[in-house]
Amino acid sequence: MTDFSFRLTHTDGMGRSGTITTSRGDIRTPTFMPVGTVGTVKAMYPEQVRETGADILLGNTYHLMLRPGAERVAKLGGLHVFMDWPRPILTDSGGFQVMSLAKLRKLTEKGVTFRSHIDGSAHELTPERSIEIQTLLDSDIIMQLDECIGLPAERREMERAMELSLRWAQRSKDAFGRQPHRALFGIVQGGDDPELRSRSAAGLGSIGFDGYAVGGLAVGEPQETMFRVLDEITPEMPADRPRYLMGVGKPDDILGGIQRGIDMFDCVHPTRAGRHGHAYTRFGVINLKNARHRDDPRPLDEESPNPNCRRFSRAYLHHLVRTEEILGAMVLSQINLSYYQELCRGARAAIEAGALTDYAETTRARWAQGDLPEYQGA
Amino acid sequence: MTDFSFRLTHTDGMGRSGTITTSRGDIRTPTFMPVGTVGTVKAMYPEQVRETGADILLGNTYHLMLRPGAERVAKLGGLHVFMDWPRPILTDSGGFQVMSLAKLRKLTEKGVTFRSHIDGSAHELTPERSIEIQTLLDSDIIMQLDECIGLPAERREMERAMELSLRWAQRSKDAFGRQPHRALFGIVQGGDDPELRSRSAAGLGSIGFDGYAVGGLAVGEPQETMFRVLDEITPEMPADRPRYLMGVGKPDDILGGIQRGIDMFDCVHPTRAGRHGHAYTRFGVINLKNARHRDDPRPLDEESPNPNCRRFSRAYLHHLVRTEEILGAMVLSQINLSYYQELCRGARAAIEAGALTDYAETTRARWAQGDLPEYQGA
Repeated sequence: MTDFSFRLTHTDGMGRSGTITTSRGDIRTPTFMPVGTVGTVKAMYPEQVRETGADILLGNTYHLMLRPGAERVAKLGGLHVFMDWPRPILTDSGGFQVMSLAKLRKLTEKGVTFRSHIDGSAHELTPERSIEIQTLLDSDIIMQLDECIGLPAERREMERAMELSLRWAQRSKDAFGRQPHRALFGIVQGGDDPELRSRSAAGLGSIGFDGYAVGGLAVGEPQETMFRVLDEITPEMPADRPRYLMGVGKPDDILGGIQRGIDMFDCVHPTRAGRHGHAYTRFGVINLKNARHRDDPRPLDEESPNPNCRRFSRAYLHHLVRTEEILGAMVLSQINLSYYQELCRGARAAIEAGALTDYAETTRARWAQGDLPEYQGA
Repeated sequence: MTDFSFRLTHTDGMGRSGTITTSRGDIRTPTFMPVGTVGTVKAMYPEQVRETGADILLGNTYHLMLRPGAERVAKLGGLHVFMDWPRPILTDSGGFQVMSLAKLRKLTEKGVTFRSHIDGSAHELTPERSIEIQTLLDSDIIMQLDECIGLPAERREMERAMELSLRWAQRSKDAFGRQPHRALFGIVQGGDDPELRSRSAAGLGSIGFDGYAVGGLAVGEPQETMFRVLDEITPEMPADRPRYLMGVGKPDDILGGIQRGIDMFDCVHPTRAGRHGHAYTRFGVINLKNARHRDDPRPLDEESPNPNCRRFSRAYLHHLVRTEEILGAMVLSQINLSYYQELCRGARAAIEAGALTDYAETTRARWAQGDLPEYQGA
């Protein structure tokens, strides 16, 4: 089995491109990881996800530990076999969703106990159990358990959560042991406080991880705050390890993250927005529920490399969204994931050509220009 | 444009195989037509429907006249362009669904007025308007407006509806005029009364249609009644025209229909059952919600020609169904439509080999044997 490794091949300003090698295939960075919440990227076959250009998926430990259960997935051959996705998978630690979804949560030094939001059953998640679950899932990239708090927050609270996360990072590392074909990532916490973020990054660096994530962003703060934290913290994160901005975001957040030295992103936004009738294209976001599309025979974007952007009229997509047809969710999820991959592909090429700033400006200018003018009839 | 035609190539007992030629491609009969209710076969891309072996789809006039509206579909290039299905489409007249879905229905000699079940808007459907709508949709096979009543029913009521349907058949024929690249089908009514059915078939025969449907079955009667009516009526329907059994059915109904000389079938059952967690295979119907599948690593049917029956474990399909994931609806709809096509393909080959009885017996025997024994662990 191939060992996990990261090779940085190009830089352009803070932007980086490279390749993560895993035993299940390479990941071209910067990369966007579609979220396969509970063992499926919603409304997509695995090969359709691959065809958008995705090299790696994210699986949610919280959802999978409840249904179908980590031990069951392991007995069935692991998550890759279970969902028929043979390529790399990153799993989160479960902590974030325990905090956002579970009931009767109780956080202690040891870990967190909670009740399932589905059937009320009692569960415990500790740094050690999270590693165990992710190993049972046969994840390629495992995340430490951390405590992620919302913003704004008091400094004292951010400090407490950051320090707990650091202690959990050490326990995660100990539990993970030596598994060269897998990676363990630490998570930088510290809210929007530069000094706390620095201490977190330094602490994780001395423990030593295969990659470093920035957690605790995209939790309610303005984009400006997120970008400032990234400006401050990415220079302090090891340059020879992948950097992962967790749970981010919209295309503009991703572009900004890439410009600030981030290599990996994940977010439910593209698929969730697709299920709600929103399409991301080079024109920005288009709300297909809007009546302006009702009689519009034009495709979403006739110059898109994605066939689904060219084959269906806006009128048809509007119709699918209005009638709440499953095909609407299928097509728009595919269109959004494709656009996210197109964005990453463009950024990689731009970084390799030393033209990331130009690429970002051109892309943002096209978004700002907005959608095609309203259809005026033939 | 190629004219509509039907060529009967083989018979075996009452069973028949042949080819319907349309300007949009051939239809191998016996054929099952997946239902694309409102401009999409639910949870399937058009090319996925084609890959199951479908030669023709059915579109629902009632749904499409309400949303997005027939005039709008026409302006957008017709239903084939709208939904990106370039092959033949049969549309129903809208009458059946007016009776089952619409509100404040009022039936007169002229037609039926009703209010939309979606927004309460007022509409009228007459034989002439139904033809007009189906022409606007650019349908390849157009159905006459008829009155379809449930069973059991009083003879007087069956007779009244049958005679009204005959008068509407004549008006439909007049409104349709001469359109050689399209077909107009008449509908035999008469409930479960042989004499009424005969009069209906004779009446339609003297008007002259491109094909003949049997309506008013699968409306609550036992299968035995349906088969008896078919036994009585198909011999009285023109042998040189396609025969279409409307809204039928489950695999066993289809097989029985084929054995009684039916060439065409349609039903929402395979896709609806798929969305409800039921899979049709050579083992019969399998309820994937059932806990017996929870830990079962075996595929649905490892000998199936359909990759979806081989690639996913029963445990995974169970999981998708339990978590109500869209992919479950997608996969099971595909599996069911594939099985229906497999059944028709098998019947065609059997008829061509003069072995329809054997084929039907073998197929039914395998269904009766049921699913694989419960998984006992590795």
